[in-house]
This record gives sequence, structure tokens and C-alpha cells, in this order.
Amino acid sequence: MAEPPVGVPPRRAAVIGCGVIGAAWAARLRLRGVDVCAYDPSPAAADLLAAVDADAIAAWTALELPTEPRGSLTICSSIGAAVEAAELVQESVPERLDLKHTTLSEIDRFAPVDALIASSTSGFKPSDLATPLDHPERLVVAHPFNPVYLLPLVEVVGGERTALGTIDRAMSTYRSLGMHPLHVRVEIDAFIADRLLEAVWREALWLVNDGIATAAEIDDAIRYGFGLRWAQMGTFETYRIAGGAGGMRHFMAQFGPALKWPWTKLMDTPELTDELIDRIAGQSDDQAGDRTIRDLIEERDRNLVAILRSLESVDAGAGQTLAALRAASPGTT
Amino acid sequence: MAEPPVGVPPRRAAVIGCGVIGAAWAARLRLRGVDVCAYDPSPAAADLLAAVDADAIAAWTALELPTEPRGSLTICSSIGAAVEAAELVQESVPERLDLKHTTLSEIDRFAPVDALIASSTSGFKPSDLATPLDHPERLVVAHPFNPVYLLPLVEVVGGERTALGTIDRAMSTYRSLGMHPLHVRVEIDAFIADRLLEAVWREALWLVNDGIATAAEIDDAIRYGFGLRWAQMGTFETYRIAGGAGGMRHFMAQFGPALKWPWTKLMDTPELTDELIDRIAGQSDDQAGDRTIRDLIEERDRNLVAILRSLESVDAGAGQTLAALRAASPGTT
Repeated sequence: MAEPPVGVPPRRAAVIGCGVIGAAWAARLRLRGVDVCAYDPSPAAADLLAAVDADAIAAWTALELPTEPRGSLTICSSIGAAVEAAELVQESVPERLDLKHTTLSEIDRFAPVDALIASSTSGFKPSDLATPLDHPERLVVAHPFNPVYLLPLVEVVGGERTALGTIDRAMSTYRSLGMHPLHVRVEIDAFIADRLLEAVWREALWLVNDGIATAAEIDDAIRYGFGLRWAQMGTFETYRIAGGAGGMRHFMAQFGPALKWPWTKLMDTPELTDELIDRIAGQSDDQAGDRTIRDLIEERDRNLVAILRSLESVDAGAGQTLAALRAASPGTT
Repeated sequence: MAEPPVGVPPRRAAVIGCGVIGAAWAARLRLRGVDVCAYDPSPAAADLLAAVDADAIAAWTALELPTEPRGSLTICSSIGAAVEAAELVQESVPERLDLKHTTLSEIDRFAPVDALIASSTSGFKPSDLATPLDHPERLVVAHPFNPVYLLPLVEVVGGERTALGTIDRAMSTYRSLGMHPLHVRVEIDAFIADRLLEAVWREALWLVNDGIATAAEIDDAIRYGFGLRWAQMGTFETYRIAGGAGGMRHFMAQFGPALKWPWTKLMDTPELTDELIDRIAGQSDDQAGDRTIRDLIEERDRNLVAILRSLESVDAGAGQTLAALRAASPGTT
């Protein structure tokens, strides 16, 4: 077990913005015994919170992790009411800077001065988020990955005015939720993982745009091949092995020149025309067939549970994070 | 089990070029009962063939797949001797077009006229490979993924002069080896998977070049997060779920504008200076710590075996390919 101890979670947290990400944060927090106050202006939020909560309980049950005692859920009618007693405030409103600013200002105004404030943004730099805050020293980006109740990664990023102690606190807070926080030391747009994801997405759009491959074919090129590798080792370690006894240096010498080959010129951004959007949406419909979004969620979670358990059985990567959580959970030995 | 039946493998195959990829082809072929004639000018080839063979047997044993009866291995002293009775010739020499041409010409000259000739190239188009051939109608690209004895994906690509029947034959041949062939319908450099891999690699090089993240941090951003997703669903199906009830069309509307955001400008290629190569090689050394390449291979294979078995247990993706292979293997029920 290579993960540090999981530690004790906060007692109370606020979840501001209850879409798919916020609702999953609420579910993970509650499964770790944290009382959650949630705020979202949409009348649909309560239903989504309940649905994601049920998914999360099902997933943790399948992982044979305890799902009781769970923290409570209180749906609040204002940001102020939600955050007033929170030790952790997790903001997950839509990705518009003006909306993030309004929301974080209100959180900043009403949250206890010693609360940790975290934004789930997948793109904005913490320094840019912090501009309207009176207490920016307690703000971090904590960027999770869907489904938040199963995937361990959370990217923790501080801004220019974030206190160093806040980073330490964020790291231990997300560890206490059974996650694997990765400190992104330099502030850049989209951080690390989404840079890589966006590079793939851009290339995938080109392949569809140019009629080379369909959505389903591109997905198959991922999940029957390198996607299996990446569940357990990243690109560098994989290529180190490919380099053989010569390791990474040999690999770079072999592979490096390929960066100059012609196909690396296709790097501008395809125009997202209505025609391209229609094509992708249609191909995605074909790929899904008669499987609904609910079917896909259940399929995904069942697969991820199986993969996480398999990685736990061989004491690798995300399986080590799961083992650490299991060791810290009540009723497990 | 969504895979078509595995079918009967060829009786005799030739493996031309016995580096990591060629040796793994030989191992997979033998595990499927195919007699293999191998040719490689390097005196080190015999040792590598034996080492990879042992890895492959260990992996299939861990998968509880039968490893007997295995096909024989004959190391030949010329391409002509290796290919003269082959039903399948798999070429895996280094990625230099002149060398590919010389090698494929010789294969073309000595192989039975009804042999299937396949190149493992990860980059060259089959039409470009075929230029010196007298019988180009039987040539395909069949691009596998390391470790070839475990990962099911093989990209099958035909050239302008490839016969349609050759594609069908290649698809059934690779199915008979327990793989998941993906027909890449349009001929482009680097096909599908390596386009995506190269996009990630380019972005990863930038992140290291700019001092944003180390090799180990980038790998963690992959294997604790989206890498887990991609072992079972690709980028499109994952995003379809993220779109919620609105599916892919909603996701595109949300995510589309991000393609125009500033970070998408970092798309040219970083200069592979000695300094950058040193930095990456050093970071890769740090990441590996005291684990040798052999340790890493064993770790990778143990993890992949566990993941494949977990996917078999939930009847998903690469696990379905494994189930189909198991159903077709002697001694299994």
C-alpha cells in the first residue's frame, strides 16, 4: 500500500452547484461520514442529488466498502446558509468565469474564515478565480474526475495568493475522502489531465471530421489497446518499458523524430460546424444503440468497480488508493 | 460475449524482425498453436524471443488460458527460408521505409503467393509500403500494441492495391489469435490509436518542457483518473455520459467552445533538445526508482492480467475478447 494514511475527514462540508460533479462530491462526502449542505438554484438539483447518491452507494457496496454511517444531506436555499458552518466548501457551478466569480465571492463572504474553499473547475486558474475574494489565501482548485465517487484523482492547484498551508490542508482533506490528490505545482489553464484529454479530443474530432473513423471506432482504438495500459501505468512508464534495456533515452531517440513527421501538422482546431456536431451526435447515438444514459452509467460503474478491485488485488495504482480507504473505513479489518 | 467466434488459426507463420514486437507476435502465435519460423539478423534475437516467450506463457497461465499444445519455433537464417511455407508473414522490422521496402520485397519474392503479408508498422501507410511489391494485393498493415500477447487491439489497414478479400482474411486471422482487429477504413499515417497517443505525448512533452509537471506526475494524472475510464469506454462514450440526459449533443455544446480557449494554442511541437531529453530521461529514472525494466514488465503484465480478468467478469470490452478466446481454447469449458 503506497498511499499515505487516509486520515479523518471534515465534519461538515458545503457543496455549491449540484450538477453531475457537485452531486457526486456530495455523495462521496456523505459516504465518508461528512454532513453536507448543498445549494443549487435549479429545481432539478434534489432529484439529481438523490440519483447520484444511489449510484455512489451501489458502487461502494460493490467495492465492499461500508456505506454507513453516512453523513446527512441538507438542501439549503442560499449559498450563505449552505456554507456558514462548513469546514470545506466545494464549488461546482458551470464553467463561466463571471458565474464562478459571483459564486466564490458569496462563499468568501459567508464561509467561516478558516474554511477551505475549493473550486471543481476543469479549466480556470485559481489566481483568476480569486480576483474578487477578500480571503484568497484559502482558495484552491480541486479538480475531480467523473464519476467522482469512484475515480481517485483530484488535481489540487494553488494560485498566487493561495497560502502554502492551504495546499497541505487540501491534500490531506482529499486523502481523507479516499482520493489521490495530485499537487499541480504550476498554475496553467486546464491543469495536467485535461490538457492531455483535450489533445486526444482534438485529434478525435479531426478523425471524425475527415471521415477517417467513427466515434465507435475511435473508442475501440482506445479501450482494446492503450486504454488498458493507462489504467495502471501512464505514458512515460509505458514508453520506458518500450525502450527496453535502453529505457527512456533509447525510446526518445527512436520515437523523437516521429514528432517531425507529416501527421503532426494536423494540430489546428477543427471547425465545430453544425454538420460536424450532427455527425458526432449521430455516431454517438449509433454507438449507444438501445442503451440509455442510465444503462451507460451502470455499465461504466460496474466496469470501474471491477477494475479498481483488480488493481487492489495486485497492489497497483488506483487499487492502492482503494486499499488505503478500506483500511481507514469502519468495520473493515 | 460480443466478440465473433475466434476461429481456427493458421498452421504456419513467419515472424520477420524479432524485436519486442516481433518476439511477442511469435509468442502469441505459438500460444495459439501456430508453428513459427522467425528471422532476425541480430544475434540477440534468440534471447529476446525466449524471454518474451516466457513472459507470454506466464501471462496466459495467469489468465488461466491453456499454454499447451504450443506451436514450434524455428529460427531461420534468411527471410526466404522463414517465409517459404508460411500462411501468415508478420513483418516487424524497425520503422525505416527503406528497410521496410527491402524486407517486404524479399518476403514478396519468397512467400507462397496465397500467403497473407502483414506489416506491424505503427506509422507507414500500406500503399507506401507496397510500392516495390509484385503481389501487393495480399499486403495489409496489422498494427499491434505492446504487450502483443496481452493487448487485444490490432489495427488492420489496407492500401490502394490491397484486395478486399485480404482485409477479410486479416480480420479473421487476428481473431483466430484471440485479438480484436479494428478495420481502419481510410489510409492515414499513424492510423487511429497512434494519432491519439502522439497527441498525448506531444502535450506531455510540453508539460515537461515548460516545467509544469514531471514524468511521474503526468503518469499519475493518467492512471488515477481518465486512464481507468479508458480501459472500458473510450472518449466519446465517456463524454456521452458526461452530457447527461442531453447526451453527446449537449456535451458538444458545453465543451465545444473550450477548443477555442487559449491553451489550445500550445500545439506546435516542442524542440527535442538534449536538455529536454536529459530531463525526461532523468525524471523517468526517478520514477522507476530501483525497479528494473524486467520488474516493470512483470508489474505491467500482472496488472494487465488482473484488469483483463476483471473486464471478463463484467462482460465488457477487452474482457469479451478474452472470453471468446477462452471459449475457443482447448481444455476449457
